Amino acid sequence: MDGRYEVRAIGRVESPLRERAQAPKQGDEGGPDAWLVFEPRVARGLRDLTVGQDVLLLTWLDRADRNVLAVHPRGEAARPETGVFATRSPDRPNPIGLHRVTVLALDPDGLRVRVSDLEALDGTPVLDVKPVLDGGTER
Amino acid sequence: MDGRYEVRAIGRVESPLRERAQAPKQGDEGGPDAWLVFEPRVARGLRDLTVGQDVLLLTWLDRADRNVLAVHPRGEAARPETGVFATRSPDRPNPIGLHRVTVLALDPDGLRVRVSDLEALDGTPVLDVKPVLDGGTER
Repeated sequence: MDGRYEVRAIGRVESPLRERAQAPKQGDEGGPDAWLVFEPRVARGLRDLTVGQDVLLLTWLDRADRNVLAVHPRGEAARPETGVFATRSPDRPNPIGLHRVTVLALDPDGLRVRVSDLEALDGTPVLDVKPVLDGGTER
Repeated sequence: MDGRYEVRAIGRVESPLRERAQAPKQGDEGGPDAWLVFEPRVARGLRDLTVGQDVLLLTWLDRADRNVLAVHPRGEAARPETGVFATRSPDRPNPIGLHRVTVLALDPDGLRVRVSDLEALDGTPVLDVKPVLDGGTER
């Protein structure tokens, strides 16, 4: 049991955000709307998503540095260095992004989902979508 | 770009829950308190966690079935079959568990963290810990 597991992208983000320097630190700071483009093999899993629903999107932050264990929060040098598990830094051992978004539109083929306020970069792999369980703000 | 990435456990859950049949469907339905036992290599990343803090724990649900795309929610046959991305089923293509827990205690060595109400099974690999960003219920 060596603790290594393989995740496989179920889709990709299509977004105007191309570089980390452009990206807001969190989605509620002004991330753009974006498309999630899913692979045909997972279509059956998507069929019960609905417009207006809030979901949690899990992504693989493929441009992150996995060797980082401490950061200056939000990249501000004046803030004391902090262990990554007490921050939302994308740089961390398993760079899984967690984003709360609202479903804005669904393409008729079921494989393209428009979502609000997503800070993930264009091309970011999508790993999972989960419904929000209650009315909380969940971020 | 084949979309496959390797996650590596940063620790394990120590819990009295041994089998899926024992586990509640969600932590707020009565999951037991549990220990998270981290690997020494990530100690620096953990040092700013504090007792009383709410965190999001990401796990690898290693007993899940990754070929499942639709389920009867909560395993109840009377409920209509639903695409997994509109459910919290552990059975899904990338079985990443998302758990909101409260830090109850921290071992002096910094590698053992006691948390509340965790529905994950004993031995479940831990992938990440993230702070909750606001007062929301986040689940």
